[in-house]
Amino acid sequence: MENMVIKERLKKLRDSMKKYGIDYYMMPTSDFHNSEYAADFFKVREYFCGFTGSNGTLVVSLDWAGIWTDGRYFIQCAKEIEGTGVTMYRMADAGVPTISEYLHDNMTKGQVLGFDGRVIATSLGLSLEKALEDNEISFKYDRDLAEEVWTDRPQLPCHDMYVLSDELCGKSFKEKLADVRKHMKDNKCKAHLLCKLDDIMWLTNLRGNDVECNPVALSYAYMTEDEFYLFVQGKEVTTEVMDYCKANDIILKDYHEIVSFIKGLSNPGKVMCDKKNVNYTVFRTLQDKTEIADVKDPTALMKAMKNETELKNIREVYLRDSAALVKFMYWVKTNVGKIPMNEYSAAMHLDKMRSELPGYIELSFPTISAYKANAAMMHYEATESDNAEIHPEGMLLVDSGGTYMGGTTDVTRTMVLGPISDEIKKHYTHVCMGMLRLANANFLHGCYGRNLDILARGPVWNMDMDYKCGTGHGIGYMLNVHEGPHNIRWAFREGMEDHQLEKGMIVSDEPGVYIADSHGIRIENILEVAEGNCNSDGQFMHFDQLTYAPIDLEAIDTSYMEKSDIKALNDYHAAVFEKVSPLIEEPEIVEWLKDQTRPVE
Amino acid sequence: MENMVIKERLKKLRDSMKKYGIDYYMMPTSDFHNSEYAADFFKVREYFCGFTGSNGTLVVSLDWAGIWTDGRYFIQCAKEIEGTGVTMYRMADAGVPTISEYLHDNMTKGQVLGFDGRVIATSLGLSLEKALEDNEISFKYDRDLAEEVWTDRPQLPCHDMYVLSDELCGKSFKEKLADVRKHMKDNKCKAHLLCKLDDIMWLTNLRGNDVECNPVALSYAYMTEDEFYLFVQGKEVTTEVMDYCKANDIILKDYHEIVSFIKGLSNPGKVMCDKKNVNYTVFRTLQDKTEIADVKDPTALMKAMKNETELKNIREVYLRDSAALVKFMYWVKTNVGKIPMNEYSAAMHLDKMRSELPGYIELSFPTISAYKANAAMMHYEATESDNAEIHPEGMLLVDSGGTYMGGTTDVTRTMVLGPISDEIKKHYTHVCMGMLRLANANFLHGCYGRNLDILARGPVWNMDMDYKCGTGHGIGYMLNVHEGPHNIRWAFREGMEDHQLEKGMIVSDEPGVYIADSHGIRIENILEVAEGNCNSDGQFMHFDQLTYAPIDLEAIDTSYMEKSDIKALNDYHAAVFEKVSPLIEEPEIVEWLKDQTRPVE
Repeated sequence: MENMVIKERLKKLRDSMKKYGIDYYMMPTSDFHNSEYAADFFKVREYFCGFTGSNGTLVVSLDWAGIWTDGRYFIQCAKEIEGTGVTMYRMADAGVPTISEYLHDNMTKGQVLGFDGRVIATSLGLSLEKALEDNEISFKYDRDLAEEVWTDRPQLPCHDMYVLSDELCGKSFKEKLADVRKHMKDNKCKAHLLCKLDDIMWLTNLRGNDVECNPVALSYAYMTEDEFYLFVQGKEVTTEVMDYCKANDIILKDYHEIVSFIKGLSNPGKVMCDKKNVNYTVFRTLQDKTEIADVKDPTALMKAMKNETELKNIREVYLRDSAALVKFMYWVKTNVGKIPMNEYSAAMHLDKMRSELPGYIELSFPTISAYKANAAMMHYEATESDNAEIHPEGMLLVDSGGTYMGGTTDVTRTMVLGPISDEIKKHYTHVCMGMLRLANANFLHGCYGRNLDILARGPVWNMDMDYKCGTGHGIGYMLNVHEGPHNIRWAFREGMEDHQLEKGMIVSDEPGVYIADSHGIRIENILEVAEGNCNSDGQFMHFDQLTYAPIDLEAIDTSYMEKSDIKALNDYHAAVFEKVSPLIEEPEIVEWLKDQTRPVE
Repeated sequence: MENMVIKERLKKLRDSMKKYGIDYYMMPTSDFHNSEYAADFFKVREYFCGFTGSNGTLVVSLDWAGIWTDGRYFIQCAKEIEGTGVTMYRMADAGVPTISEYLHDNMTKGQVLGFDGRVIATSLGLSLEKALEDNEISFKYDRDLAEEVWTDRPQLPCHDMYVLSDELCGKSFKEKLADVRKHMKDNKCKAHLLCKLDDIMWLTNLRGNDVECNPVALSYAYMTEDEFYLFVQGKEVTTEVMDYCKANDIILKDYHEIVSFIKGLSNPGKVMCDKKNVNYTVFRTLQDKTEIADVKDPTALMKAMKNETELKNIREVYLRDSAALVKFMYWVKTNVGKIPMNEYSAAMHLDKMRSELPGYIELSFPTISAYKANAAMMHYEATESDNAEIHPEGMLLVDSGGTYMGGTTDVTRTMVLGPISDEIKKHYTHVCMGMLRLANANFLHGCYGRNLDILARGPVWNMDMDYKCGTGHGIGYMLNVHEGPHNIRWAFREGMEDHQLEKGMIVSDEPGVYIADSHGIRIENILEVAEGNCNSDGQFMHFDQLTYAPIDLEAIDTSYMEKSDIKALNDYHAAVFEKVSPLIEEPEIVEWLKDQTRPVE
């Protein structure tokens, strides 16, 4: 059956393309800052083809349309684009052209490729330039065609910003800015353009609410040796924010003026700008104006190395968050089979408990609540209308976290709800060993995550199995739950973003086992990087735990464990009880926790 | 007291510099191929300043001379250059200029820097060009001034080459050349210039004897799509080699003709040449002539991934070499305190045992025999005149190996000769655990050594100690004992030579503990990279042992070990006895070996 709604939208789009002389128009999945979550305003690709997945790029010509997506979405996408006339291209499948290859093969000399350059990564834009230079294709990237065609389009997110106190941040905006200016000087730059939202928030000690689960405002920042410009939507600037900006010599400009501002710069000199964090429109505008030093945003490392104030607050927030999780685990494990419970309702219960904690701002990401085989799907999301009932058998995996005044959390526990197989116990025990071995590493300063990954992954590899993701990521301070530049991964590509582990960084430690159609296990703690002994062999480093919640002993088979693994588990559980029990008022939960953290042999 | 010998030599050198219009003349420590061991012919720096260490560069102007060396040699160098008027520059010390910096600050506009470009790495030559371009310094690199001045100079090494059979090599020269030509084609190159001696030997299935402990001939190779030129000293070409070259269409040219040959090329097209393996003279000559593609020598990886024939021979050679080592260990441990024994005589005894093995060619490196505190010095070398007596107390570290028809070996054992402290037992046990944990790793294809290093080094790091070297290096097949491109190291620098571990590579596994003025422990086995299970998670890899010699149980304290460590040690010892005892005729040694490899708890 024909999908007339989509066909009509595509017809209007093509009319608009003709009007502006565009032969091919490209629509990816991104906001202007490549945020993890794109707001509804940015769902142009979905509007024009019906495909709702998190990764896909739609390309439309006057007589053809194609959607590129990856293996997670082949089935869903095919279903959603039925009757639209759009063709699906399976990314990475043999014989399937990339978008660059397709355009190279199909566009003819002198044609025009259109896209909104603000939603295109600079790297993609530059690679398209290269791929299409032989064809003499010109780019029209200064117009968002959806603006005219999509009449009932949602608004661009626009929510009040707010100010964090210097006491909460440990370092004032002016101090941070002085550090950034030092980097500008070191790189012989007169100015710095910063486009990454969490970096701008960290630098200014401001926060916003324009991206789901990320407390950030849509913004750009441009700083010289003596001026600081912040581009935000005027409606977001409260009196408090206005006063703060005045007091801190922050010159406010409208968010949408960034391009005209850059065009109007007179003799800006060399400008420091991290190519991987700027969209194509802004990059091209700046490059047409002046010399760019493609230098890593210095804020990335500064932001990752938490200061003493941040660490103190983070430790407290993680304890409270852990206590809430413990109460939730008690609730699930004692109520399963007695009251109705499904993946979604369990997640709601946990989300509500978090929302009642002091300083709660929002979830740090949508809670993952996955029962039995659903836990084997890494991108599984239960919804109110589509979820599994939970029964007293198998396991429930819950990956969740919150952002509070004082920190952002992330934690995963896989809970035993009833009978489980010996195979599951074997897998669970090896995941537990991996998590604890990495957490107990002692290593020299200079190590990267790739030097340590095998400590967590080794027990899984020893079963000739792997988990197809990294072991760990950085986490923001009242900011994004995923941040760089460091990580814990084993695979390496020359030029990838990475940094050696530094004192004050925090990083997740989340090995897992995922068996399709059977079960999924992940145990995730967050670790703080700390300094140990310094001697003639160098500065030794280790991790301190931030997360304190029991690991389910019902799934532990100690016969797989080394004596040091058993000691590590018992030591960790003793610390869980010691630190979390004082935060729990209900005696029955304290008693339950005592049992859950009992030593094993 | 003045050193008139050196002063007279320097005077003659300066006369020669004047004659050729050279203001500064630079002499490093290298042969024409940056070999690990430079022959006496190349000891120009030593001749002109008296310093005999393995690392140093002498720079001489008309009224000044300076020697740059590193921390290992500050004391020795100061002593050896006494009275010569030469100034020592301590490399890497604060405030000490590098050679580039010194020349930049002291050479004046239009002056001439001279050196023999054949003994200068291309990277050094290019960095000097850059450092001195402001000064408008010109380089004179086509003359070795020592040629005229050093009248009693030793001859350039020149020994008979020989041919290895295709049966021994597993792959003929023509097959290997076809593979190299495929790489030339892939890199759109018309020719390939190969300057690395062990790569030339591997490719041609020839061997020589021009570098100490490396069975290589001084040579260059230049190949096009249909021709192959081999540049060697004519005197080295035996009738056998001559016939082989004829049969294989190898065009022989004189070793010294390489520069004029390159100059005479007509329209060579783009030439593949690995910048890091070619000396400055040859590189500059080629660059003046044509376009260079700076591509890694493809032979490096081909040579590292041993074929089935090579592996079969290597396994046999390692077993025989292990048996010889076992007999040596028996000899040392049962005779110490009963017969006179010193570091040097023990090494001689072992070297003699190796020399009597079938197919023996030469030692793969000078045997390191270090008693007690001497073992803590990584570059320690006992000599006939300067060595320590061995008594029935403490430990003896012996690092040794041989090159045989069928393989090159490398092995280290640290043997207990009498009472040792609990601290030594603790260190020894942790080194043993590290060696075995790496050897027993199970990992996914794609891993680099840096992903695995912590398995060997972790037990040492866990004591807040480190060994200041890599854990492992590749080893040649009847070639150099150190070869790339892979390694086992944790530290990482962007652009460093490295490669993921591939099936058929062999690599050393040699963690250690080195306590200055007290003791040194190293246990080194050689491992073969092998494929394990291949499933939907990927291709799993593991190591197979090549070295089979007991680890000294007198120094093992099992209370430090995990149960898997104890199992690994017992399994390894059982294999040692099973594989090596059939190669030992003496019943008393078999009995001794049985005891040395007994299971522990």
